[in-house]
Amino acid sequence: MNSLLIAPILGVVGMVVALVVYQLVMKYPDGEDKVKKIGDQIHNGALAFMKTEYKYLLVFIVVLVILAQLFLSTESAIAVVVGALCSSLAGFIGMYAATKANVRTATAAQQDGAAAALSVSFYGGSVMGLCVASLGLIGLGGLYYFFNGYEQGVHALEGFGMGASVVALFSRVGGGIFTKSADVGADLVGKVEAGIPEDDPRNPGVIADNVGDNVGDVAGMGSDIFESYCGSMIASIAIAYTMGRTDLMMLPLLLASIGLFASVIGIFIVKLQSSKAPASALRSGTLLAPVIFIAMAYFLIDSRGIETNVWWCVVSGAVGGVLIGLITEYYTGGNPVRKIAESGETGSATVMISGLSVGMQSVVIPIIILAAIILASTSLVDGVYGVGIAAVGMLATVGITMAIDAYGPVADNAGGIAEMSGMGKEVRDITDSLDELGNTTAAIGKGFAIGAAALAALAIISAYSAQVSATYGDAFSLSLENPIVLVGMFIGICIPFLIASITMTAVGDAAFEMINEIRRQFKEIPGLMEGQADPDSEKCVEIATTAALKKMMLPGVIAVSMPAIVGFGLGAIALGGMLAGGLLGCVALALFMANAGGAWDNAKKYVEKGNLGGKGSDTHSATVVGDTVGDPFKDTSGPSMNILINVMAMVSLVISGLLPLNGIFF
Amino acid sequence: MNSLLIAPILGVVGMVVALVVYQLVMKYPDGEDKVKKIGDQIHNGALAFMKTEYKYLLVFIVVLVILAQLFLSTESAIAVVVGALCSSLAGFIGMYAATKANVRTATAAQQDGAAAALSVSFYGGSVMGLCVASLGLIGLGGLYYFFNGYEQGVHALEGFGMGASVVALFSRVGGGIFTKSADVGADLVGKVEAGIPEDDPRNPGVIADNVGDNVGDVAGMGSDIFESYCGSMIASIAIAYTMGRTDLMMLPLLLASIGLFASVIGIFIVKLQSSKAPASALRSGTLLAPVIFIAMAYFLIDSRGIETNVWWCVVSGAVGGVLIGLITEYYTGGNPVRKIAESGETGSATVMISGLSVGMQSVVIPIIILAAIILASTSLVDGVYGVGIAAVGMLATVGITMAIDAYGPVADNAGGIAEMSGMGKEVRDITDSLDELGNTTAAIGKGFAIGAAALAALAIISAYSAQVSATYGDAFSLSLENPIVLVGMFIGICIPFLIASITMTAVGDAAFEMINEIRRQFKEIPGLMEGQADPDSEKCVEIATTAALKKMMLPGVIAVSMPAIVGFGLGAIALGGMLAGGLLGCVALALFMANAGGAWDNAKKYVEKGNLGGKGSDTHSATVVGDTVGDPFKDTSGPSMNILINVMAMVSLVISGLLPLNGIFF
Repeated sequence: MNSLLIAPILGVVGMVVALVVYQLVMKYPDGEDKVKKIGDQIHNGALAFMKTEYKYLLVFIVVLVILAQLFLSTESAIAVVVGALCSSLAGFIGMYAATKANVRTATAAQQDGAAAALSVSFYGGSVMGLCVASLGLIGLGGLYYFFNGYEQGVHALEGFGMGASVVALFSRVGGGIFTKSADVGADLVGKVEAGIPEDDPRNPGVIADNVGDNVGDVAGMGSDIFESYCGSMIASIAIAYTMGRTDLMMLPLLLASIGLFASVIGIFIVKLQSSKAPASALRSGTLLAPVIFIAMAYFLIDSRGIETNVWWCVVSGAVGGVLIGLITEYYTGGNPVRKIAESGETGSATVMISGLSVGMQSVVIPIIILAAIILASTSLVDGVYGVGIAAVGMLATVGITMAIDAYGPVADNAGGIAEMSGMGKEVRDITDSLDELGNTTAAIGKGFAIGAAALAALAIISAYSAQVSATYGDAFSLSLENPIVLVGMFIGICIPFLIASITMTAVGDAAFEMINEIRRQFKEIPGLMEGQADPDSEKCVEIATTAALKKMMLPGVIAVSMPAIVGFGLGAIALGGMLAGGLLGCVALALFMANAGGAWDNAKKYVEKGNLGGKGSDTHSATVVGDTVGDPFKDTSGPSMNILINVMAMVSLVISGLLPLNGIFF
Repeated sequence: MNSLLIAPILGVVGMVVALVVYQLVMKYPDGEDKVKKIGDQIHNGALAFMKTEYKYLLVFIVVLVILAQLFLSTESAIAVVVGALCSSLAGFIGMYAATKANVRTATAAQQDGAAAALSVSFYGGSVMGLCVASLGLIGLGGLYYFFNGYEQGVHALEGFGMGASVVALFSRVGGGIFTKSADVGADLVGKVEAGIPEDDPRNPGVIADNVGDNVGDVAGMGSDIFESYCGSMIASIAIAYTMGRTDLMMLPLLLASIGLFASVIGIFIVKLQSSKAPASALRSGTLLAPVIFIAMAYFLIDSRGIETNVWWCVVSGAVGGVLIGLITEYYTGGNPVRKIAESGETGSATVMISGLSVGMQSVVIPIIILAAIILASTSLVDGVYGVGIAAVGMLATVGITMAIDAYGPVADNAGGIAEMSGMGKEVRDITDSLDELGNTTAAIGKGFAIGAAALAALAIISAYSAQVSATYGDAFSLSLENPIVLVGMFIGICIPFLIASITMTAVGDAAFEMINEIRRQFKEIPGLMEGQADPDSEKCVEIATTAALKKMMLPGVIAVSMPAIVGFGLGAIALGGMLAGGLLGCVALALFMANAGGAWDNAKKYVEKGNLGGKGSDTHSATVVGDTVGDPFKDTSGPSMNILINVMAMVSLVISGLLPLNGIFF
């Protein structure tokens, strides 16, 4: 068989497995009328968001396709479309399955107990994980197969990355603004003003809040990882191409293929253990899949006659990814969280200070791990191909990583549904314990996503540098002694701060519109507070959707246009500096914001479990402030950083062939 | 006359002017018994802190001197001592004068009205400004004169910078922890727990709080600017030396000399206008001094036959410094402040979010201005000499800039003294208006200090790179394509986050000890609350001193040792990367933290003026939380960033001759 076909064929197999898993989800009942109705509302709300998002997206993509056709090649234009399509499809199917699994998890918890609930929610997440990995292989592997004869083939693949990046931008940033504005709006009017519990069905914003978990944490996270996953492969292929090592070009796709295989095995392991404690079931899946992958990778690399050092790069990436996840778990779940909670005894100001301090400290070790991976992989393999392969190694088992990550929001949603439909304490206890575990896995997933995004971005930046070097030779040098590189770096470090600032404000502004709408409904819908009339949940979803997509335009345009502005204005050298500065800023801010937010969230939960005075105490109020600040930190601005650096790097890579060495203004 | 003597002689003249100004301060009466007593307590408390600080410092300096003698040269060892001595002396005299001026300002406000109060407080600040500039010229100019015959002369000057850096580290970081722990401790027990007003004489922590303003905002700021001032000159001299352009070597000292002259004129202008509105008096001094300096610089450069482009670099630095100050004023006083205050209507969480967002946004324009200065100055003059000269241009009029900056804490202290001694509302109104103006000038000063520190650090880093290049030739290249440079940059970006985290926690820990002591005194000293017994203020000063200096050890050791660890462990190339990453992180975090903190502070003040419900309203409480978080942001962690990057850069420059190209571990 033509080895070029391995990746797309395995991708198709993966999609079949995803379909089987989806069927397993659908086998469970979706519950009685009330439960079913709530489930449908969430499902339809999520689809409504996706529909509107795709409309906006279409305009963006059409512009990119036209630009690609005009300035690059027809192949690039096609690749942009395929990339956008695969990413959208992965997000769409994954979210579709997740919004089917959430009701079924709640019902399973009610009818069959904890083990069944774990199975359904994990299956729901697995569909997302499998789709991300499979559609990446089908899309990228397929294009690679078809373009192999063309000279422009390798460059055209970069268009795939750009298409995927733009989708990720919309899903992750737009989804992030949606989820937090809905969350804040529903809580503020419902809990604080009207004094009704969280997830109360009378609150018009509650459905939007649950929709938000799906569009933000499932679809958004999926497209984020999809982008890194494909980006690391594209970069490695491009670097191998500029090295003239055609034997190394296929390797990323093959590694990802066996990674998908290992993920499927991992998913089965979790399933087999689901009757045991959920935590250990998930953990064995997370740890065994990379081990299987690493072992298989050794034989793959050996069988193709590639040097063993390349395998060590794979190992460094895979191990590094696990380590970063564990560090994240410590900072968002260990001792630091207890300290933040304790600082709540002296008020909300000290909660803020200790949380910010924990967030800043949490930046250090993951970045040192990344530095160690870079040092190891570049020492092992000449040039930066090692870095690309380390990124591929980290991301290859994305099927299982994403499955476990997406399981969290499904369980979270199930809890909300159980609450809204009044399923009782026992059910709530099961969903709560699953949700709690989901928070831990989500934190690990976030750390992993940041590490993977950073490494993928670095690989893409290296590919950019290699391609510009191929054009200009020694005249292109990103030396720090060259002032224009420094100028680029200074510009680069500003961008993450700017985008973080804009997205944080966006949540507040979008939440403001939600608040007004919820207040209006409480006032104008007769019988709503008495439970005799239904709220107009759809309207809330609509408002959050429009606000989120409107608010993500500015950061989106900045992210996509900055590489072109600096690249043409100050030249390819300055752009190289900008990407380096942007990378540093994005990684640091992403870790800072995600971990501070996660730690605040769990500090609040720690108090809510009855520690330090428990719910309703002053300490609790203080930690609630931390959690509210942490929400946009960890779910909007922080995750936007991953996309930001990858979009900028990918756009730079795509336009690298068009750039002048020195720009118009320099 | 030997032109080498111009700088030290003008420095001596500057010291004489400072002495005259000090006499003018002392001409004013120090008030009646109660006022005098409080003034003495603050004065003695500040001296006690300095004394303890110098003890710790001595150990550090002795170690450095021994290392310098062993591994560098006797000249370097001497320079370390002279640098440390000059910096300490500038801080000591300036703070001595400031703590004499504060009581006299309060008394002048009571006896002679606003104009006299402005004069005294401004004179008090001017002593600091003049000492920083003059002692810089005497010390550095004197060493330059004596070392001119030695071959090691230029390198020995770098020891001066290191000595000054270490003093700055102690003063700024230690002082920053002192001032905020005293502030937080006094407020928390006094205002919140005991329910007595701010600056109430019964509160044992109030004297320590006022001492803190002096050791943090006067002595700390002075040593911070002193370090940048001398650092920019040293770097420019070193760069000119490696360029082989001896004609350019003297220029930095000469520019600083005429800058001192322009500052003295500026101080007179403010004095002449002090009967008018204080704001316009200070503004005309701030703006006219640079104009005079720029004009004189033109003739200086022209007369020495140096290309006019060098003058343009001076202009870019001087203008850039003013612009960065104005941007800072906007973010900490303009529209953003009102928005933060308004967000207080929905609680403290939204105050936090909007303040963090403002802080992040405020990073952008100042950094773009810095990038523009780099672009302009390096385009105008070959190599990085232009950057060094731009930094010198920005810092040359440090005499007036520091005078206006140090005026703020003097006025602030005067207000505290007026309150403590019960001087009545009229006096309080005068000191309040002076204090308010002082907050604005302090914000501008902080922005300026960050910009200057960044440019000075960049110049020092460039000098480092030039010196290592001189040893290793083309083998030394800080190319971003070289993975070890990236590794260095990743390590570098972590350090500011780590130091920011440590210093923020340090404030909390030190405040905790203060809180316990104040609580103890309230409980154990009979008659204290009734005003019949005096609190043991000295004990509080002592505790804050010990806690602050103990807590600054860890960040201090990290800052001083990281260049050596990375330089010897990973080599000179990695260290270059680390400095670049550290520079980006330090500048961005410094601006973020200083401006967020300043904006929170002023948002609280905006509400206290009666807006949005005024004092005691929920909105006010919400903004108080912002202010409490902002305190360590703007007065401890933020300012530490300036020192951090300069210490790291200066240590690297000093050890540059000893470093291997590739380290032990790489």
